[in-house]
This record gives sequence, C-alpha cells and structure tokens, in this order.
Amino acid sequence: MENSSEKRPLILITNDDGITSAGICALAEAVIDLGDVYVVAPDSPQSGMGHAVTIGGILRIKPAYFPVKGVTAHTTSGTPVDCVKLAIYKILHRKPDLLLSGINHGSNSSINVIYSGTMSAAVEGAVESIPAIGFSLLDHAADADFSAAKIVARKMSMEVISRGLPAGVCLNVNIPKLAPSDLKGLKICRQSAGYWTDSFDERNAPSGEVYYWLKGEFTNPDKGEDTDEWALNNGYASIVPTQYDLTAHHAIANLNRWDLNE
Amino acid sequence: MENSSEKRPLILITNDDGITSAGICALAEAVIDLGDVYVVAPDSPQSGMGHAVTIGGILRIKPAYFPVKGVTAHTTSGTPVDCVKLAIYKILHRKPDLLLSGINHGSNSSINVIYSGTMSAAVEGAVESIPAIGFSLLDHAADADFSAAKIVARKMSMEVISRGLPAGVCLNVNIPKLAPSDLKGLKICRQSAGYWTDSFDERNAPSGEVYYWLKGEFTNPDKGEDTDEWALNNGYASIVPTQYDLTAHHAIANLNRWDLNE
Repeated sequence: MENSSEKRPLILITNDDGITSAGICALAEAVIDLGDVYVVAPDSPQSGMGHAVTIGGILRIKPAYFPVKGVTAHTTSGTPVDCVKLAIYKILHRKPDLLLSGINHGSNSSINVIYSGTMSAAVEGAVESIPAIGFSLLDHAADADFSAAKIVARKMSMEVISRGLPAGVCLNVNIPKLAPSDLKGLKICRQSAGYWTDSFDERNAPSGEVYYWLKGEFTNPDKGEDTDEWALNNGYASIVPTQYDLTAHHAIANLNRWDLNE
Repeated sequence: MENSSEKRPLILITNDDGITSAGICALAEAVIDLGDVYVVAPDSPQSGMGHAVTIGGILRIKPAYFPVKGVTAHTTSGTPVDCVKLAIYKILHRKPDLLLSGINHGSNSSINVIYSGTMSAAVEGAVESIPAIGFSLLDHAADADFSAAKIVARKMSMEVISRGLPAGVCLNVNIPKLAPSDLKGLKICRQSAGYWTDSFDERNAPSGEVYYWLKGEFTNPDKGEDTDEWALNNGYASIVPTQYDLTAHHAIANLNRWDLNE
C-alpha cells in the first residue's frame, strides 16, 4: 500500500470539529498503519467555516496530546485551511503524500460542500496538488459509531495512495449512518442539487437585545440516481470528485452573446 | 432598466470589507437609480472568510448609517453569507431581484475566488436563485479610485436586471486598476489556474510566544488568453461565470474504473 518501497507515505490529517472530536481519532486509527501520520487540527470547533483563511490576524501552533499511538499532533488557532497551510510550511516542511480531513460529525453531501470546513481542507489539498479526501459521517452524535466510516476511510486512503487523483480534484466521501454489515458499498456520484430553506430563531438576551440563530431545512428536489443523496439514502457511501475551478464553463458561450462592449 | 413596468427592482448590496469601506459606497452610488437599494453588510471586515456561515453562534442585526442617499442600511455581526441569509429572511422578508457584492478592495480573480467573502455572498445568491454579481477592484488602497469599477458595476447590473443569469450561476467581475478611459472593455473569461505560494512570517510576542502571519506570492502558469488573469493584465475587466456545483464531472468516468466494491 506504500507509494514507494523505500519510505512510508506521509499522511496529514485535519478536520473542522477540532482536535478533541471523536471523528478525527477514528480517522487516525483507520489509517495509522498506512504511513507516518501527523494531525494538525483546529484547537476549537470550526464547523461552517467554508474556505475561510486567516489573512487579517495572527496564527498560533501548539504541540498537542493525541490519543492514537504513533501520531504526532499539533493544534493551530486557525481554520481548517489555515491548518493545511501551517502543516505544509511550518510543521512538516514538505507536502504530505496524502491529506485526509474528518471524519466530520454530520453530512457534507450536496450543497453542504460549499459551507464545509472539512471539505475546504481537502479542496486546499487539491489546490496544493496533494491527493486529498474529506470524510463525513451522517451522524451528529458525540458518541456516533464510526465503524463503517473507518472501513471506508481506510479503503479510500489505500486506493488514493496507490492510484493518486486527477489534477485539481479531491474526493468528498460521505458515509451513511449504518452498521458495516448494512453498508451496500461505495458509489461514485455527482453533487446533488439540494438546498437549505433557511429561517432564523429570534430570541431576546437578558438585556432585551434581539439576536438570531440560523436554522434550516434541507430539501433535495434532485431525483438523479447518480447523486450523493441517492447513494446515501440507498445504503451506499458516496464519493464525489470535487474541484476548485468554479467556472461555469457551460455559461460562457451564452454570456458571449451579450455584446457587453457595444 | 426595470424588470417590470410596475415596480423598481429590489437590489441587495453586501460585501466582505465591512459597511465602512469605500467600495460598498461606490457600488451603491453606481446603481442607486436602478432600483430600491438595501445594504446589509458585516459590521467589521470579513476578508478571506470564504463561504463561512455562522452555525455555532448567534447573530445580531443593527440599523446603520450609510452615506449614500436613498439607501436603507443594516449591519450584521456575521459573515457575508450570513448577511445574505439575514437580509432575505429577517430584513427584506423576500428575495431581492439582484444581489451585488463588493466592490472589494483587491483582486478575486483566479484561485482567489475560493477564499473570497465577496464572492461567497454572490455564490450564496446563486444558491438562492437570485441573480448575483461580485465586483472587485485590483487596488487595495483605502483611497482607491473606483471610477472605472463603478462604470463596470452599473453596466453589468443593468445587463443582469434585464437578462437574468443561467440557473446556478453568478458572476465574478474583476476590474483592473485603470482610469475609465484606459479600460479596454469587458471580457467573458474562465478562472485562470493560478495559485499562491504560501509562507509564514514568524514573530515573537512580548511574552516570547511565537506566532505567525500568512504571506503569499501569486503565480499564474496558465497562459490562456481566455482567462481572467489575461484579461486583467491586458486592460479588460474580467467576467467569470461562477457556480456552486463543485463536482469534477470529468473525473467521474475515471473513478468508476476503480472497482471499489470488489
């Protein structure tokens, strides 16, 4: 499973739930024998941080305790993307052979990919030409069962170590909340065209001041059987190749008819 | 210029530099006569926030002074994406007819689009099926000359009000640092395959503690004349249709050959 007969792959693990989450331990356990494993994770939860990067403030790095034997761990004061950059340039002093992010507590399928700190770390890996995978389990519980997710994470890590990934592409892997024996398999998918209908809970502070909490309800009108949502709802782990080229290439010809310079 | 003979379009303006920036005033001035203009902007700078959304904390909204006559303005304590959601669901109580973000102080061309709070607001508009445009001027100066950017912003806003945009697509518009008379025109482009080579400045706090500042140098090996970087370097404003479907559709067939279920 190694990409060279001489040395073990260097595996960098990060996440957005922070270094104390169960998911990042599960991920490290799943791949600990596949290479030299370094954890560089946020010192506090960073869910919903999207592709945020710290450009107007300072960053700190601290050595950290990590409960999986053989792992070298650090925390940073930054976002998941900051963790990737700090790991490469200040901790490892090289690009890892594989970047893993997660295992996230909660889904990053469909439109969730654009809000996801977990996936932003994987996308940053693709930007840096590092084979990268983000893993998410469809279970928010602090004591979620990561058994099936660990099997998927190990399998996909081995595949990507041996095969690599196309340039500019990382993988968004979501795992349904199922026992390993009930998982039907792994399915390559496209991102489903689901969306959130948002609302805000309005509350009053003791001072009387009004404040808001974001709430939302996910809707998926996209019935395609090639989508991540279909796979997850039918017992499969979904694997979506994900890119950072946001160009809507299909719209260019249409826009060129606008004659903007007349 | 109106999309209906009966009522003026509702135009929502946000940004990531915060409500006090010169760029958001320039944008409001550029479009004030095209519709009813509402500003909902962060109460402090949010550059580099990517598609961050506040899901683990509370949000506040406050009425705000805005120096352009006829504009109704609010600040929020959230990110640019939070501003869009709060504007729709708690301030306007409807979707605007046009969402404008910017004018950002600094480029959001090429790979910058994924880190950009300005563009995340526009992308959130596309997610909400609102025609949306992000504008950025290639000048970080607080006293930057927005003359050319205002002409481009007005032109593109009028076009999008009258023509709409394809589903799932917003526009990433960057304007070079040129006088209006030197601007050669507007060019529909793809996102260039540029990247940042990062480094970190290492410093010591008075306590002796080490901390870091992110630095970076932009490199663009992509010499295509259909890119935003080419357009900007050759005197054109660049217009990149931008989408939130991150699926690397071209990679699906390749990945399907991996036989992951054997």
